[in-house]
Amino acid sequence: MSKKYNFYAGPAILPHEVIKKAQEELLDFNGCGLSIMEISHRSKEFEKVNDEAEAKIRSLLKVPENYSVMFIQGGASLQFSMVPMNLLKGGKADYVNTGAWAKKAIDEAKLYGTPTIAGSSKDKNFNYVPPITLSPDATYVHVTSNETIGGIQMQSFPDTGNIPMIADMSSDIFSRRIDVSKFGLIYAGAQKNMGPAGVTLVIMRNDLIDGTADGLPTMLNYKTYREHKSLYNTPPCIAIYIVKLVMEWLESNGGLEAMEAKNNEKAKILYDAIDNLPMYSGTAEVKDRSKMNVTFRLTSEELEKKFIKEAEANGLVGLPGHRSVGGCRASIYNAMPLEGVKTLVQFMEKFQKENK
Amino acid sequence: MSKKYNFYAGPAILPHEVIKKAQEELLDFNGCGLSIMEISHRSKEFEKVNDEAEAKIRSLLKVPENYSVMFIQGGASLQFSMVPMNLLKGGKADYVNTGAWAKKAIDEAKLYGTPTIAGSSKDKNFNYVPPITLSPDATYVHVTSNETIGGIQMQSFPDTGNIPMIADMSSDIFSRRIDVSKFGLIYAGAQKNMGPAGVTLVIMRNDLIDGTADGLPTMLNYKTYREHKSLYNTPPCIAIYIVKLVMEWLESNGGLEAMEAKNNEKAKILYDAIDNLPMYSGTAEVKDRSKMNVTFRLTSEELEKKFIKEAEANGLVGLPGHRSVGGCRASIYNAMPLEGVKTLVQFMEKFQKENK
Repeated sequence: MSKKYNFYAGPAILPHEVIKKAQEELLDFNGCGLSIMEISHRSKEFEKVNDEAEAKIRSLLKVPENYSVMFIQGGASLQFSMVPMNLLKGGKADYVNTGAWAKKAIDEAKLYGTPTIAGSSKDKNFNYVPPITLSPDATYVHVTSNETIGGIQMQSFPDTGNIPMIADMSSDIFSRRIDVSKFGLIYAGAQKNMGPAGVTLVIMRNDLIDGTADGLPTMLNYKTYREHKSLYNTPPCIAIYIVKLVMEWLESNGGLEAMEAKNNEKAKILYDAIDNLPMYSGTAEVKDRSKMNVTFRLTSEELEKKFIKEAEANGLVGLPGHRSVGGCRASIYNAMPLEGVKTLVQFMEKFQKENK
Repeated sequence: MSKKYNFYAGPAILPHEVIKKAQEELLDFNGCGLSIMEISHRSKEFEKVNDEAEAKIRSLLKVPENYSVMFIQGGASLQFSMVPMNLLKGGKADYVNTGAWAKKAIDEAKLYGTPTIAGSSKDKNFNYVPPITLSPDATYVHVTSNETIGGIQMQSFPDTGNIPMIADMSSDIFSRRIDVSKFGLIYAGAQKNMGPAGVTLVIMRNDLIDGTADGLPTMLNYKTYREHKSLYNTPPCIAIYIVKLVMEWLESNGGLEAMEAKNNEKAKILYDAIDNLPMYSGTAEVKDRSKMNVTFRLTSEELEKKFIKEAEANGLVGLPGHRSVGGCRASIYNAMPLEGVKTLVQFMEKFQKENK
């Protein structure tokens, strides 16, 4: 069988070197004679892992000093609630509705205040990033930097002035350079570009943490994570450890500048194929095309089924579109090598020839 | 160096066979060519892992059919809040205060109603399990089956009649047989007898799930986990996978009956040594001694420091008592072999001889 390429939207491909390293040390972490899964989170060995993961994230994303970096459980889905629970306090907030993930965030916010739709692409089944109209009295504005289902991505971020911008970056964090200082809070589930499922990164401006709501459960209050450096209770140790390895991999592969260039190149090759091969058509508006999740259709649903099946038989797995929209989707996160995208394009060409 | 034995209170020792198996398949899960960390939680491969983990838990604990088995993130610490958030609805609940963990559960409950102290061993620094006085109007009664810090354990559970009993079993689940039908809800962080940190098991009677409070955030409502078989959002896949491996290990080692017998034997050997060697004294009342966390003191704090240091040099790690109480603690969870306990006892004898 040929080499396997993993186009799953998430949990997604991880760098081979990272899994290899994790495998090598799984029985004996760092010569301590125990597995990373069975050492105390209060041990100096684990505290070092936790500290290093944070330090590397700070360095790679150039996180300003007035921001805290926290590891939380529950995925972005829990952040949909924690953000309004901590910050909304019955007030109003602007939400940009770019698709399924944004919609979930909006629904959860309703429990804690009034989310206003500051922009929506619902009219075209979320195939573009809508313009944003800010409300002057918004507590914050919430955006989703990349939507895995529609395959759209914010190519730039607005200047929201004094209104803190909050971004769900679950599916494109670490894929490109960002200016953290433009945001009040960034959150991201790990399972795309950062590590395995089971840990969520939250980067938050300290003045916003200072002002979180009173009377929150300890585990749902951002203050708890800042004050205890994410170690108030037992954290998901192995997930944080793998995040640290992925950050090391990013560092040794040129950091976010190199990653951005590589991701641009991969996306161009794949979108060029979609645009040039008549059997395929992209579903997202060209200006908003995601460099992480490339969504496309074939000329019929039957052909799509056949394409996905034959691709899988050729080692190209995870290509079905999200069950809510159908079609095809190739997720080409950081860890997807250029070779994987080229192999997919070759297969697309071959499939078109054979199915004319 | 001699073989290393891990007496950490948690994250704690895991069966060697489990880590070995996880290592073997880390790069290629079940022949699918991908790591368990990078396959979709919607893939049939992962759904099978999730289903099997649940089925094995049901079988080992003989979970009745009218209970749901759920995997949640956030640790027992999040359950301290989720339990009252879902069930208390401004009412009263009985809480038994057996130590630090019970105390945390009590504090979180105050946000959602009135916790009544139905028993407390605070008068003797939590070195015993107090008698329980139930309030007739309690919504539920909350107990902690084992306290890792004080080293005490409920040897049996009361009959609470119509009042649902809720138990934090984080530190002794799967260590002995229990009658699940006596409980309304059982929760347990995985990182003692079940797997790595990052997943929490919740076993809950369905009529209690039916009656959870309205208006809860999706990720904090038990209904979400029951309805989606814990797959509403991306779960901590690798942690659930390791839980499945630990359950297989339990099955192939005789299940909970055999585990209970082995744990009784290990605890007896260690407590006998503590009782027979004049340098050591147990801190918990004899009738309530934990078979999981054996707490003891030496005749002076200086000797304790020396003991812990020399033990570590001899491959016996994780023996310091919790930082809040000092002394020594040997956590001898399921995965601690009899040989490990015997080695510790030999070391205790030798240390006593050398330090008379």
